[in-house]
Amino acid sequence: MVPARSDEGMWLLNDPPKKHLADTYQFDLTPEWLDRAMKANVRFNSGGSGGFVSPDGLVVTNHHIAADALQKKSTKDRDLYRDGFYAKQREDESKCPDLELNVLQSIEDVTAKVNGAVMADLKPADAAAKRRAIMGEIEKESTAKTGLRSDIVTLYQGGAYHLYRYKKYTDVRLVFAPEAGIAGFGGDVDNFEYPRHGLDVAFFRVYENEKPIASKDYFRWSATGPAENDLVFVTGHPGTTNRLETLAKLKHRRDSTLPYTLNRLRSMEAALTQFGDRGPERRRRAGGDLHRVANARKAFSGQLQGLLDPAILKQKEVAEIALQPQPMASSLTPSPWLKIARAQAVYRDIEKPHALFETGHAFASELFTIARQLVRLGEELPKKSGDRLREYRDSNLESLKFQLLSPAPLYPDLERAKLQASLTFLAETLGGEHPLVVLALAGKNPAQRAEELVANCRLYEVAERKTLLDDGAKAIAASRDPMVSLAKAIESESLALRKRYENEVEEVERQAYGEIAKLRFAKLGNTVAPDATFTLRLAFGTVKGYEVDGEKLPFHTTFQSAFDRAEAMKNREPFDLPRRWIDGQDKIDPKTPFNFASTADTIGGNSGSPVLNRSGELVGINFDRNRHGLVRNFVYTEVQARHIAVHSKAVLEALRKLYGAEGLANELTAK
Amino acid sequence: MVPARSDEGMWLLNDPPKKHLADTYQFDLTPEWLDRAMKANVRFNSGGSGGFVSPDGLVVTNHHIAADALQKKSTKDRDLYRDGFYAKQREDESKCPDLELNVLQSIEDVTAKVNGAVMADLKPADAAAKRRAIMGEIEKESTAKTGLRSDIVTLYQGGAYHLYRYKKYTDVRLVFAPEAGIAGFGGDVDNFEYPRHGLDVAFFRVYENEKPIASKDYFRWSATGPAENDLVFVTGHPGTTNRLETLAKLKHRRDSTLPYTLNRLRSMEAALTQFGDRGPERRRRAGGDLHRVANARKAFSGQLQGLLDPAILKQKEVAEIALQPQPMASSLTPSPWLKIARAQAVYRDIEKPHALFETGHAFASELFTIARQLVRLGEELPKKSGDRLREYRDSNLESLKFQLLSPAPLYPDLERAKLQASLTFLAETLGGEHPLVVLALAGKNPAQRAEELVANCRLYEVAERKTLLDDGAKAIAASRDPMVSLAKAIESESLALRKRYENEVEEVERQAYGEIAKLRFAKLGNTVAPDATFTLRLAFGTVKGYEVDGEKLPFHTTFQSAFDRAEAMKNREPFDLPRRWIDGQDKIDPKTPFNFASTADTIGGNSGSPVLNRSGELVGINFDRNRHGLVRNFVYTEVQARHIAVHSKAVLEALRKLYGAEGLANELTAK
Repeated sequence: MVPARSDEGMWLLNDPPKKHLADTYQFDLTPEWLDRAMKANVRFNSGGSGGFVSPDGLVVTNHHIAADALQKKSTKDRDLYRDGFYAKQREDESKCPDLELNVLQSIEDVTAKVNGAVMADLKPADAAAKRRAIMGEIEKESTAKTGLRSDIVTLYQGGAYHLYRYKKYTDVRLVFAPEAGIAGFGGDVDNFEYPRHGLDVAFFRVYENEKPIASKDYFRWSATGPAENDLVFVTGHPGTTNRLETLAKLKHRRDSTLPYTLNRLRSMEAALTQFGDRGPERRRRAGGDLHRVANARKAFSGQLQGLLDPAILKQKEVAEIALQPQPMASSLTPSPWLKIARAQAVYRDIEKPHALFETGHAFASELFTIARQLVRLGEELPKKSGDRLREYRDSNLESLKFQLLSPAPLYPDLERAKLQASLTFLAETLGGEHPLVVLALAGKNPAQRAEELVANCRLYEVAERKTLLDDGAKAIAASRDPMVSLAKAIESESLALRKRYENEVEEVERQAYGEIAKLRFAKLGNTVAPDATFTLRLAFGTVKGYEVDGEKLPFHTTFQSAFDRAEAMKNREPFDLPRRWIDGQDKIDPKTPFNFASTADTIGGNSGSPVLNRSGELVGINFDRNRHGLVRNFVYTEVQARHIAVHSKAVLEALRKLYGAEGLANELTAK
Repeated sequence: MVPARSDEGMWLLNDPPKKHLADTYQFDLTPEWLDRAMKANVRFNSGGSGGFVSPDGLVVTNHHIAADALQKKSTKDRDLYRDGFYAKQREDESKCPDLELNVLQSIEDVTAKVNGAVMADLKPADAAAKRRAIMGEIEKESTAKTGLRSDIVTLYQGGAYHLYRYKKYTDVRLVFAPEAGIAGFGGDVDNFEYPRHGLDVAFFRVYENEKPIASKDYFRWSATGPAENDLVFVTGHPGTTNRLETLAKLKHRRDSTLPYTLNRLRSMEAALTQFGDRGPERRRRAGGDLHRVANARKAFSGQLQGLLDPAILKQKEVAEIALQPQPMASSLTPSPWLKIARAQAVYRDIEKPHALFETGHAFASELFTIARQLVRLGEELPKKSGDRLREYRDSNLESLKFQLLSPAPLYPDLERAKLQASLTFLAETLGGEHPLVVLALAGKNPAQRAEELVANCRLYEVAERKTLLDDGAKAIAASRDPMVSLAKAIESESLALRKRYENEVEEVERQAYGEIAKLRFAKLGNTVAPDATFTLRLAFGTVKGYEVDGEKLPFHTTFQSAFDRAEAMKNREPFDLPRRWIDGQDKIDPKTPFNFASTADTIGGNSGSPVLNRSGELVGINFDRNRHGLVRNFVYTEVQARHIAVHSKAVLEALRKLYGAEGLANELTAK
């Protein structure tokens, strides 16, 4: 709620800060610039961003966004995640089992349509049903008309609804990935830190009908990269921010959601670490989960420090009071702020059971996710799209089935370890005699229960899933698969929790935030961007370093400083540079800029976002924030907070001098 | 509550299972055997066991019990913990800054005296005060008469009180320690596992008046060690078991204490891991804490699985009902079981605040511990011993001051990291607006608060502590030291929680367990040993392997199997054998037995316990249990559960062939 005088803002592409950019940076944000930014941008449905960087469907993203695909393509004997990959020839480009990319084609404001269908005097439960129904209808109609994936996005926590239409690609092939050791150099230690030294990039190519697509909208690769104090833009898909949330909601996060989340993440991290430490192959299998969990633990820890900082809460309080019409107290109907506070009281009672059962935190298992989706598909598919649980609506079905029938490998030992940890966490959280715990454990302890569920499950086989999917509800009802049985056994309890959450928390919040949004628009106009929603946004900022504890940190690092850091850390994991880098040190220019920092406003989900200069050329690939940026979920700050990107020049230098990837480098720099 | 037909039991030395041993093992437990077992045993006040192994004050224990002393004697440039130590000459034996050893001299049953002073109709608060007073008096009188440290131990949770008298030694010098890499080979991965390969031993020598003491009671070192199926004894100081606790108490552990504890340990483990990963010196500093925390996390995880196992709870319930007089319902006064259940309801309300403030979990800092002790010493010393907080009673004062004025180094960076983690955990547990959180954080977030407390504290200096100790309450009142100020600021809240805990939980439980103990004695006689209390006990068992998942595990491992394990784990930490072992492989006999397993009943605190054969010779040094043994807090089982010990022959072979410690080996085997 800080007015956007600063570089704050993850802006909608259909409501960009044109005037601010002109006034502050003398930059003319043209429709052409914006149109390319939209159509050359790529959303990784696995949770990240990327961009087209050649007319032949070549896409750049982060190595850590590619990690899921790399792991799924790896085996005990060939570890693409650890060792990297390069397809010298097109025919070596290698298809990923379940990677889906979305490219935004258009945005349409449908707020009036959505709100028009929800009569003012409806009870929350009825209002929520109406809203789901109209959203389903609009999406279905759009898909029928355009053939595009059509998603309605809720903006301003319920203040606006926009329809996003995507072109969808499912034949995505791996072109290049460096070794994990240089992509994620410094590991968990350097994660969310700066100075930084990561070649956190990977390249894919998008195919249709067995041919690379013609991507006429793409970003030209800058051979020089950014200079200090340059204006740069980050276009990508920031996941979630909470800046427009009320004080009551933030306090709920501080006192309930975050402590629960951190406890959960730490318990999973301990389990995965123990699992991985038991041998190299286990370590490989658990690697992706472990990275995600450790990354989230660090991010949420930073958030909690932010919300425990009285100065930040004070700032929130001041902004909130400034927005409230005076005098609040005399009003007869409760204020939207009070409604949200009351919804938190309800939420406190159901948050943990809801998260454990309906979000599935108690069942951290791919097999369980598959089983639940099969059970729900059986129930939901016969219904009209608008009447279904939202993730089973028509516009999402293809993507969902694409994931469900993925041939990616599943590992029984890893499944068992995660399930035991999460079932134990369930019992820790609710207590051994809570009805949900008794239901889930079925007379066993978590270790025994995980063992029986995983050992006898048949959902490892895609064919088995396909049969259950095709045969629908009857086949599901008859199935004795232990994981399907578990999903069935907990379904009514889980859906009851979901219903309470949607009707008593989510819908109440949505309506109240809608009211607040109106007050905010009236007072501040469009100077405040909506919170992030994993949809395409435009951020901007200045390339610059910062000072910490009296030390000036430069705006970019270099290859040389990476070698220096490795030596200072005695080349001990995670600071052990790959052999290729150690042997090749003489081949590369040590002064090559490696990573750089800017003030632009980013958050998780922005990983892999193209960083662009005024001309719309790609000068970097965003991959992280520093720890000062962890409070950006709640407040934007630019004193020390920075996002961090791989420098475009570093990529060319490494591709050419270390990886023998002249062909790829040439494709990037072709005129 | 399983009758002792098995090898169950950590027996009192003044009430040993003489008949059972005679009947089952045809072993005659003589007074001489017992007397040596008592006087040759050593308690490490840092939390472990050990034994005299020569007439010249030589003591053996575990490396992991010596770890605290090894770390305190290490510097950035000389890491005794990691690299080991051997004093070839007496004059090289090196004094430990704050290591205190206790040797038990006698045990006296004072149950009648203690209970006689507590009138039956007193309110719990008054009863607790009376009990504290009489215990203080008895201890004081004993010390005055004998000059020995005199502690009253509460047995059977309040069913009996015995007076233990110890000879105390504070000049303890390091003689030998191997490298941490072989002492703790396999690290957290192999911890609580079997087969096992650890040279988890260290040797100290006890001095008085600058000369080694004459320890006429000592264990002769067996050059051959145990054979399969041998009867062996473990004599040492098991810390805590909960076998005689009621079902209500165990459920409280399952649903409240253990989840809280695991969350706390995992949060500290994550913080310490992050701290240690930031460089080798930080890693060295955090090493001891990290090992303790990871070890505890694994142990408590095993306990929780045990209490979540319906079969184990059922067994407890059956035993409990069998003990209850029939019919329970008709009685007018509440049964002791009901009293304990009701006390848990009180405990649920205060457990977390009590643990955070009074146990100090919110303030994980050596500096804080020092500050609190100074504040309390100022208050308590002017009172009579029996009226003081129990840990400030006369019998404990010398040991307490010895610790308080230890010159062991304190590291500001580690202090800050631990304090930030624990203050954050405080806020996570109670919520940002809880009065105790507001009080502790004083308007800062945990990171800022930890920084200000640690940066400006002067208690790093022993002289500063000494001044505040000597000048007492007035000096404390005037002190502006931030850590002392914190300790003062939270004192009244903390003591109020302690008072509620002692009066409404502890004393109620004590009285109720006293009643249950009477019923048990009446029904089962002395066939049930009391729960462990970190006092000397005698356990016995059979040396043997076991079967797991169809695989037969041998009763001992060998040096060869250690090398095999290292290779299988690619010599990757924590499976990287020390250079001395790799280079010296040809010098040692690969068939030398390394670690062995037996059914004897042990628990944490037994680390370093001498394992003896029928002749009372030392055949091993206990150092761990396997994971099947983790439920032994609640139930004894011998199907797969084993304790694990270093084989006496392995120690001799390594000392002679690898460490050039012929002198030490000869002292062990001298006739």
